[in-house]
Amino acid sequence: MPRDSSPSNASPLRVAIAGLGVVGSEVARQLTHRAGDLKAPAPRGFEVIAVSARNLDVDRGFGMDGIAWHNNAAELATRDDVDIVVEMIGGYEGVALELVETALSRGIHVVTANKALLAHHGTALARLAEDSGAALLFEAAIAGGIPAVKALREGLAGNSFSRVSGILNGTCNYILTRMERTGEAFGDVLADAQALGYAEADPSLDVDGIDAAHKLTLLAAIAFGQTPDFGRVSVSGIRNVSSVDFDYAAQLGFRIKLVGVAEPGRMPRMQTCLLPASTQLAKVDGVLNAVAYDGDPVGSTVLTGPGAGAGPTSSAVLSDLIDIANNRVTPTFGRPLDQLADGSKVENGGGSDTPYYVRLMVLDRPGVLADITSILQTHGISVESLLQQGRAPEDVVALVMTTHEVAGEKLAKALAEIEGLSCVQAAPVSMPVLNGDLEG
Amino acid sequence: MPRDSSPSNASPLRVAIAGLGVVGSEVARQLTHRAGDLKAPAPRGFEVIAVSARNLDVDRGFGMDGIAWHNNAAELATRDDVDIVVEMIGGYEGVALELVETALSRGIHVVTANKALLAHHGTALARLAEDSGAALLFEAAIAGGIPAVKALREGLAGNSFSRVSGILNGTCNYILTRMERTGEAFGDVLADAQALGYAEADPSLDVDGIDAAHKLTLLAAIAFGQTPDFGRVSVSGIRNVSSVDFDYAAQLGFRIKLVGVAEPGRMPRMQTCLLPASTQLAKVDGVLNAVAYDGDPVGSTVLTGPGAGAGPTSSAVLSDLIDIANNRVTPTFGRPLDQLADGSKVENGGGSDTPYYVRLMVLDRPGVLADITSILQTHGISVESLLQQGRAPEDVVALVMTTHEVAGEKLAKALAEIEGLSCVQAAPVSMPVLNGDLEG
Repeated sequence: MPRDSSPSNASPLRVAIAGLGVVGSEVARQLTHRAGDLKAPAPRGFEVIAVSARNLDVDRGFGMDGIAWHNNAAELATRDDVDIVVEMIGGYEGVALELVETALSRGIHVVTANKALLAHHGTALARLAEDSGAALLFEAAIAGGIPAVKALREGLAGNSFSRVSGILNGTCNYILTRMERTGEAFGDVLADAQALGYAEADPSLDVDGIDAAHKLTLLAAIAFGQTPDFGRVSVSGIRNVSSVDFDYAAQLGFRIKLVGVAEPGRMPRMQTCLLPASTQLAKVDGVLNAVAYDGDPVGSTVLTGPGAGAGPTSSAVLSDLIDIANNRVTPTFGRPLDQLADGSKVENGGGSDTPYYVRLMVLDRPGVLADITSILQTHGISVESLLQQGRAPEDVVALVMTTHEVAGEKLAKALAEIEGLSCVQAAPVSMPVLNGDLEG
Repeated sequence: MPRDSSPSNASPLRVAIAGLGVVGSEVARQLTHRAGDLKAPAPRGFEVIAVSARNLDVDRGFGMDGIAWHNNAAELATRDDVDIVVEMIGGYEGVALELVETALSRGIHVVTANKALLAHHGTALARLAEDSGAALLFEAAIAGGIPAVKALREGLAGNSFSRVSGILNGTCNYILTRMERTGEAFGDVLADAQALGYAEADPSLDVDGIDAAHKLTLLAAIAFGQTPDFGRVSVSGIRNVSSVDFDYAAQLGFRIKLVGVAEPGRMPRMQTCLLPASTQLAKVDGVLNAVAYDGDPVGSTVLTGPGAGAGPTSSAVLSDLIDIANNRVTPTFGRPLDQLADGSKVENGGGSDTPYYVRLMVLDRPGVLADITSILQTHGISVESLLQQGRAPEDVVALVMTTHEVAGEKLAKALAEIEGLSCVQAAPVSMPVLNGDLEG
């Protein structure tokens, strides 16, 4: 049974917060310390009535008086006095899943920052929400403080989208930006980012593109009206990017970013790619995130902001809470489930043709360029620009080029053949070039 | 009496469009040609039942069969079969005002792109809407396709804002960007922009900052919870910008933009100013618009996109229509009128201290710098950076500097005194430097 969340109902909405890490604690602080402010957009107001966390004996900056404590987060959803559960535990199994399932089954609204949970179980959870009339909102799951979900789901709701793309992981963007600026190697920057707290001790979720791909899965579901299916997203990260490529890319007018791209009829992909330096996504540096929405009739719109952190993420949680308090709730992925296509069955036509950046490490020797271009020609691949700097006879030099549009598989075959040439001294490096986006 | 706009009501919402210029016609085309698409986010659907325009005999790209034609737009609001009026006439008097007043009084929802109307009459119109239960939505009035209103009013609703700022006029941004890139004078670029259709024959609304100031008035109302009051906005435009200043600004690490800035306790101001080149607003070029929202707890978020044109603006109109169809309507300025402060009585503490850019045209002669810095020192103004390029004894050279933070009135006094020096050959040029915003 859906709870009454009519704005005219005078009693405050009773909130339970599961997980009191930096974000959960900040949400609790905002709801208690800024209760007066929040009555302007949500006249009903909110009351934190219960929390769960591993350790009670930590000062988290808000008073625990009158707030019930649970060791087991799942208990929050079995209480009879809770209107909304704020899930800040993380992970797509175990207690987070149990908590959210129980809450939604009982008609308790859920606000979550958990992209992994929704990327893996979004359809089933949306079904529970729809059946019970509860809201399942996740603005905080994507791009932190940027209202990325609301902009796509409501602000641009009248569009037919041709692409959604984004820089969706601040850790990766910080590492790439710093490699570009200082020339440091990936491993060194990562180690430093870990020391600074920008990267986790186990960095895999971030640097292998998994976290960003979870977010892309959800954006694609909303944009293209399909159920989320993480298994159908192509995922790669930034471990293989070399510092030298930033310089070459710059000389060709590009920057290198980890970008998630979803387009109708193509497999969504998280990939390190080259962006024209004049585009808005290319200008997003450091720990910032950004999303770019391309559609008809809007054209292209880009939203940029802090992608993580207690403040930005709690801003997103508050926005969802305020929507619930005002009864302004949409279906989980923007439309009722019966109007979503089955994401596991969407036709993905494979890779479209794309321009590529290619770097070859070759012996500087007469005839090398002719050998390489001859192989490319055989495979029907034409070169758009070529860069060969300095001369070092019989030494190794970089030969850098961009191609015209070509299928990835075709390029891979040509590069395998090129790698077999005696003059080629290392495995070829290639990255797609992403055109489009907003140019200023 | 509010009309029934419950999503479960099966009958389509009946829309009347007033004004069939490029935007109004595009809205009609979208509603008719993309009716199937639009049923996903708005299952009820829409039906265009009446229009008004000056001339019936123009092919606007959609069929007029079954659509009633009115010569007088105000008649659209007197029909008994209209659920929503889309007002695309413009202007803050005359028929646009009459139409919107009549519609709202009768409980007919209004979706409008008319920033002038709302900046001048927003409070009275919001009152009519609130009394009758009608929606008055204006996403299309600000920054075209960027969901600037929704992001501020809902997506960031939990924030306490310290600043809203934006590049809110594409014509001005185009002119400034081109002056910067080519060194052309303002008048030449304006004439060309007029020829290209980027600027009106009477450019005053754009280049004098009035249009952008209308938009800033509305953003300030939402952000700070006050009624809109255009009369309390300080407005200036770009007519006095000289091409030479772009170069000097660049050497100091800045770009020059027309930026609207609203902060609590200060008069909102539309001003040509210098932005650090590393900030996101500084990177917004050409006809693009952008808004930057700074608040607690979010930090700073920047939205960039096309600020005008049929496609982007109709995207914003569709978004408002879809919200109405789903009953997801907020009060006009984000909160009920009785929770808005009176914008005409808000304390504006006058100008805060700000760094300034100053350019002086002086005779290159010994002692000049000493004379000038002595006057600045007398007024308690300290110089942060100074630029004097080339030498041309007894000829006129530019002396460019940035100051530390200073009150505008204090700087004006010092500059008046400096202008009186015999070595100073032209009126001093000064522009504020806007710090903050999002840095990548």
